[in-house]
Amino acid sequence: MVTLAVDAMGGDFGPDVTVPAVLRALSEQQDLRVLLFGEESKMRALLGPRNVDRLSLCHAEQVIGMGESPAVALRTKKQSSMALMLHAVNDGKADGCVSAGNTGALMALSRHILKTSDSIDRPAIISALPREDGRHTFVLDLGANVGCDSEQLYQFAVMGQAVAQVLDGGRKPTVALLNIGSEDIKGNDQVKAANDLLRGDEDLNYIGYVEGSDLFTGKADVVVCDGFVGNVALKTIEGLARYVMSEVRREFNRNWWHRIFGLLVAPLWRRVEQRINPSGYNGAAFVGLRGVVVKSHGNADAAEFNQAICSARQYVDKKLPDKIESLLK
Amino acid sequence: MVTLAVDAMGGDFGPDVTVPAVLRALSEQQDLRVLLFGEESKMRALLGPRNVDRLSLCHAEQVIGMGESPAVALRTKKQSSMALMLHAVNDGKADGCVSAGNTGALMALSRHILKTSDSIDRPAIISALPREDGRHTFVLDLGANVGCDSEQLYQFAVMGQAVAQVLDGGRKPTVALLNIGSEDIKGNDQVKAANDLLRGDEDLNYIGYVEGSDLFTGKADVVVCDGFVGNVALKTIEGLARYVMSEVRREFNRNWWHRIFGLLVAPLWRRVEQRINPSGYNGAAFVGLRGVVVKSHGNADAAEFNQAICSARQYVDKKLPDKIESLLK
Repeated sequence: MVTLAVDAMGGDFGPDVTVPAVLRALSEQQDLRVLLFGEESKMRALLGPRNVDRLSLCHAEQVIGMGESPAVALRTKKQSSMALMLHAVNDGKADGCVSAGNTGALMALSRHILKTSDSIDRPAIISALPREDGRHTFVLDLGANVGCDSEQLYQFAVMGQAVAQVLDGGRKPTVALLNIGSEDIKGNDQVKAANDLLRGDEDLNYIGYVEGSDLFTGKADVVVCDGFVGNVALKTIEGLARYVMSEVRREFNRNWWHRIFGLLVAPLWRRVEQRINPSGYNGAAFVGLRGVVVKSHGNADAAEFNQAICSARQYVDKKLPDKIESLLK
Repeated sequence: MVTLAVDAMGGDFGPDVTVPAVLRALSEQQDLRVLLFGEESKMRALLGPRNVDRLSLCHAEQVIGMGESPAVALRTKKQSSMALMLHAVNDGKADGCVSAGNTGALMALSRHILKTSDSIDRPAIISALPREDGRHTFVLDLGANVGCDSEQLYQFAVMGQAVAQVLDGGRKPTVALLNIGSEDIKGNDQVKAANDLLRGDEDLNYIGYVEGSDLFTGKADVVVCDGFVGNVALKTIEGLARYVMSEVRREFNRNWWHRIFGLLVAPLWRRVEQRINPSGYNGAAFVGLRGVVVKSHGNADAAEFNQAICSARQYVDKKLPDKIESLLK
């Protein structure tokens, strides 16, 4: 039996998305129990009078807004659904948690309530991107740390390797640093210093520098960068994917003749879309914490939020935090 | 009459691409003269015995390799095709120049031979990305400066506005800083400080922060970032575009039935490809120098290198360096 704590109030749609997603997760996974944190009346309204098997509603007085400053949330929102969700994990009532709420606040509260693992300075956000060979490239940090020194980048590499190893099963993943060229003279001081640290670690399968274009080629299984660069890269990918999809829709709506073509190739295009659509890989993990925390896109729908719940469950099953601890020792 | 100096030896294919591209440019533009710098025997072999109207071959003893260190090139390659091309611009023999060679070396030699404009600390690389409304987003810096302080980012904004104004004609372009969120609390110290500088400039149409996903929405006409971030974003876009195109090809080659669909929608897809294909927007400009320098992709074909020549011609016609000088005063 696995128990997950879920923030019902987070995200652009709150309970309207999270409650249906949780119900779906519970029906798909018979060995899953969920503690759902939020405004009880709102959650109850969506559930109706019946009690749902393996679901406990936990009332929270407060909600953290999407635009709220992490510092303010940390100080004034101790009774928020997000804070109570994290306490449930810290108190051992839940094995991991999922929220679609304010990323900065979730990171600040996670560090404050769960604490970081030994020998980790700052947690990082990691996610998996699709690539040509049908597998995934794990990229971190995606926005938790706007500036990183070489030691932090080194720790990200170790955590990234752990995640890739756990999720891709067994084989030793290749690790690379994201840079603006593959030659050793390229890059800023932090990246060059991290390159030296990584070359010195026998336990890592470090292959050197990769460029943005290599994210999709499978040149490396884990790509490490600071949170500013990673966040820009991720959002640029999301933006271009949406742009491509809108361009294709526009072409197929030019005239009735194109619309017929569009209907013919719809199933093919849907397969391509599924590969490149950003929401296809929902559920970024916060790594380097003493517990499993998964962040869903704020604008996720029920199916996508359910994906985030499944990711959290997977991290719990694989004991990701312990695995990272052991690799860092 | 406009005279352009062209580095025949740069890029992955050297004269095999640059010579045909120059011949095409000369036939398309009757008021264009070209000084072509490189190994005379190689250029001559491709041209045959005949003399080409408005084309002068200028022999260069040396060639700068694509992987060569800028510092070494600066010290030891004074007789290279790239250096002689830049001297032609500096001596007033040419109005601007184009090379597909080593980016770092081209920037180092440009700064050494042409010098930067008054009140510009470091030149930047700028290019135009396609976007949903059919117009372009100008992004800089794309890799000339791995780390930038707020003053440099401010100068990039002014230069970017000048380029957008010159190329999009008249109307005042909107300028934004690339960041990891639109709220004021987001970002690193340089970006926050640049945000204050830009808010203080009445002459700029500054709209604040944008994120990577906004590059394609037209939220801003000019997007400013440091060279590390910009280079990663650009190469990530190139990588994803190639990935999407390969996924589509794969779908349409699954079986003979899909191949027929592929043939039917080929013209539609080609239009989409033209919009998203990185090589569709070849020819990045080095701005902040006392002269027009255009850098082509190293792997450009003749058609793409010809585009770079056309961009250079456009920058010369619009007197881009003077325009930037006047805006910075």
